[in-house]
Amino acid sequence: MTQAPSPTSTTRPRILTGDTPTGRLHIGHWVGSIENRVRLQDEYECYFLIANLHAFTTRADKPEEIERDTYEILKDWLAAGIDPERSTIVLQSEVPAITELTWHLSMLLPFNRVMRNPTLKDELELKSLGDKYSFGFPLYAVGQCADILVFRPALVPVGEDQLAHIEMCREVARRFNHTYCGVDPTTADEDHVKAGGLLPIPEGKVGRVGRLVGVDGAAKMSKSLNNAIFLHDTAAQIKKKVAQIFTGRTDMNAPGDTNNALFQYVRAFIPDAGRVAELEDRYRRGDNIGDGHIKAELVPAIDALLAPIRERRAQLEGATGDARVREILAEHSKRANAVAGETLGLVRERMKLVFK
Amino acid sequence: MTQAPSPTSTTRPRILTGDTPTGRLHIGHWVGSIENRVRLQDEYECYFLIANLHAFTTRADKPEEIERDTYEILKDWLAAGIDPERSTIVLQSEVPAITELTWHLSMLLPFNRVMRNPTLKDELELKSLGDKYSFGFPLYAVGQCADILVFRPALVPVGEDQLAHIEMCREVARRFNHTYCGVDPTTADEDHVKAGGLLPIPEGKVGRVGRLVGVDGAAKMSKSLNNAIFLHDTAAQIKKKVAQIFTGRTDMNAPGDTNNALFQYVRAFIPDAGRVAELEDRYRRGDNIGDGHIKAELVPAIDALLAPIRERRAQLEGATGDARVREILAEHSKRANAVAGETLGLVRERMKLVFK
Repeated sequence: MTQAPSPTSTTRPRILTGDTPTGRLHIGHWVGSIENRVRLQDEYECYFLIANLHAFTTRADKPEEIERDTYEILKDWLAAGIDPERSTIVLQSEVPAITELTWHLSMLLPFNRVMRNPTLKDELELKSLGDKYSFGFPLYAVGQCADILVFRPALVPVGEDQLAHIEMCREVARRFNHTYCGVDPTTADEDHVKAGGLLPIPEGKVGRVGRLVGVDGAAKMSKSLNNAIFLHDTAAQIKKKVAQIFTGRTDMNAPGDTNNALFQYVRAFIPDAGRVAELEDRYRRGDNIGDGHIKAELVPAIDALLAPIRERRAQLEGATGDARVREILAEHSKRANAVAGETLGLVRERMKLVFK
Repeated sequence: MTQAPSPTSTTRPRILTGDTPTGRLHIGHWVGSIENRVRLQDEYECYFLIANLHAFTTRADKPEEIERDTYEILKDWLAAGIDPERSTIVLQSEVPAITELTWHLSMLLPFNRVMRNPTLKDELELKSLGDKYSFGFPLYAVGQCADILVFRPALVPVGEDQLAHIEMCREVARRFNHTYCGVDPTTADEDHVKAGGLLPIPEGKVGRVGRLVGVDGAAKMSKSLNNAIFLHDTAAQIKKKVAQIFTGRTDMNAPGDTNNALFQYVRAFIPDAGRVAELEDRYRRGDNIGDGHIKAELVPAIDALLAPIRERRAQLEGATGDARVREILAEHSKRANAVAGETLGLVRERMKLVFK
């Protein structure tokens, strides 16, 4: 039995990454992942997953909200520069192979292994779910393995907090290859496919994880904390929100701390490195430079980033935009299902689940 | 939004029941369920599920065995009188809607509710799984809900030990109707569909649960205990196995206990009720009747039941039989997917998961 070539095989290594739709994107998302994804498209064959089924783990009673957020994140992605010509957008609920593979993988993962997953534990705590979570919550950890493995990627760009999930994904891939493809368990990860394994053991790729503090200067930028600058914010809104960034510095001739919230924004959004260094130097020395001066440069810098995003996003509003988005979803779901369906077919072959 | 009529809608109430494939069927299965199912086909629109994916919960490392057992149980069913013209055989792995529905239902079931399910606890104990079970094991409890609900049956014939599973299935159906179809939670079960609910709340139908002791007279008949008379056993094998039934009675003129193992068989397999009563009466009184006399009548009675089953089963052996079975599977999977796919489509509509 030989492995059929992928219908979308290219010479570029394949990447899978994505988000659960939770609302409109802000510049914290840009710094944390979107900017990086837009760049990855040149070098990699990218699959970007909208995990709308995972959204039901905590909001099963809000299907309309999840549907709306799904369209919003897709439009925001496109506006931000995810290129539908080069990359594939995967809408999770349109790829039925994912739920079936989740089932198969759950048979290979010890119950206690799933429940001890530190990422899962952290999320239970973070979301204050206590004892009141659905069975779907731990299932979601297994589902993430299927999200990834059904595309057989080489790399999975993630934040550090997600590494434990990736480790479980790697474990279950190894176990699948051992159980159903006869791969010796001592085989090195990178040799699994060569040794007859169906699933490559994907690597977690932790990039420069940009975390952006909110305009309150206190917590990570987040829609729910009302401290976010959204990708769709207007110049006026940007100005108003940047004005809120509070550093506590009052004397423009006193030495300033360039680790403060304001300078996180400076480094993230003023593209001219020389200018950033100059501002840092003057601020540290207290060389006649106040927060207001910095903000006056920061606002147009953020606006310069967001203006083309806003413009592209505007083209996706209204009936024409909706039609365009539906067209992309239809075409991309076909592409995604070609890859995912091929993987599932091979999974079923290896599991002796072909009844023809 | 109105509910489309089912493509297979009939006036007969719909039933779903089935088995996990674990090996060849024996007369304990006949008494416990098969006989009943064969009879149900007249009165009900029957869906008989072969739960081959559930078999992976405890035998994930034995895919060839599960594949073989799947074909064997299907052939045994057909031989025993499951009629492919009247009933639909559902091979679980051929109906992808089941795994997807499992995912959706898992979002509606509290984790602790699934884990506290007494049937699940019993099975963990029975199979001595201790701490070493897969995540698929509790998932399987949710999967059973999907097995059932995807066919929207009115009734689910089960053994008493499965009632807790059915209760969970009923709970999640109510919750689905409440969450996604706006059914008031105080609505009576039988009014859910009338009130706009997609899923009827199915009733568990506990039949006369026949349990048959093994020919060792000690434990429930079971392949693994080596105390079973199989549906495919020859007359000679039946005779040899019946001879093993030991009652401890030695004097054919001493009063006998008609609750012993031997008389369980008499009542189960000698069809003439008058003759059974007569044998019971003489045995109780010790009226010159030994175990040997009883066995001499029991053997041909069992053989009379099994002879036509054996014959039909013989026709399913070899290449012709395999082709016939594949043909049935293909046709029935189409039928099953028509119903299950329709349910899933309606589920997705209600959950706002239609992206067209």
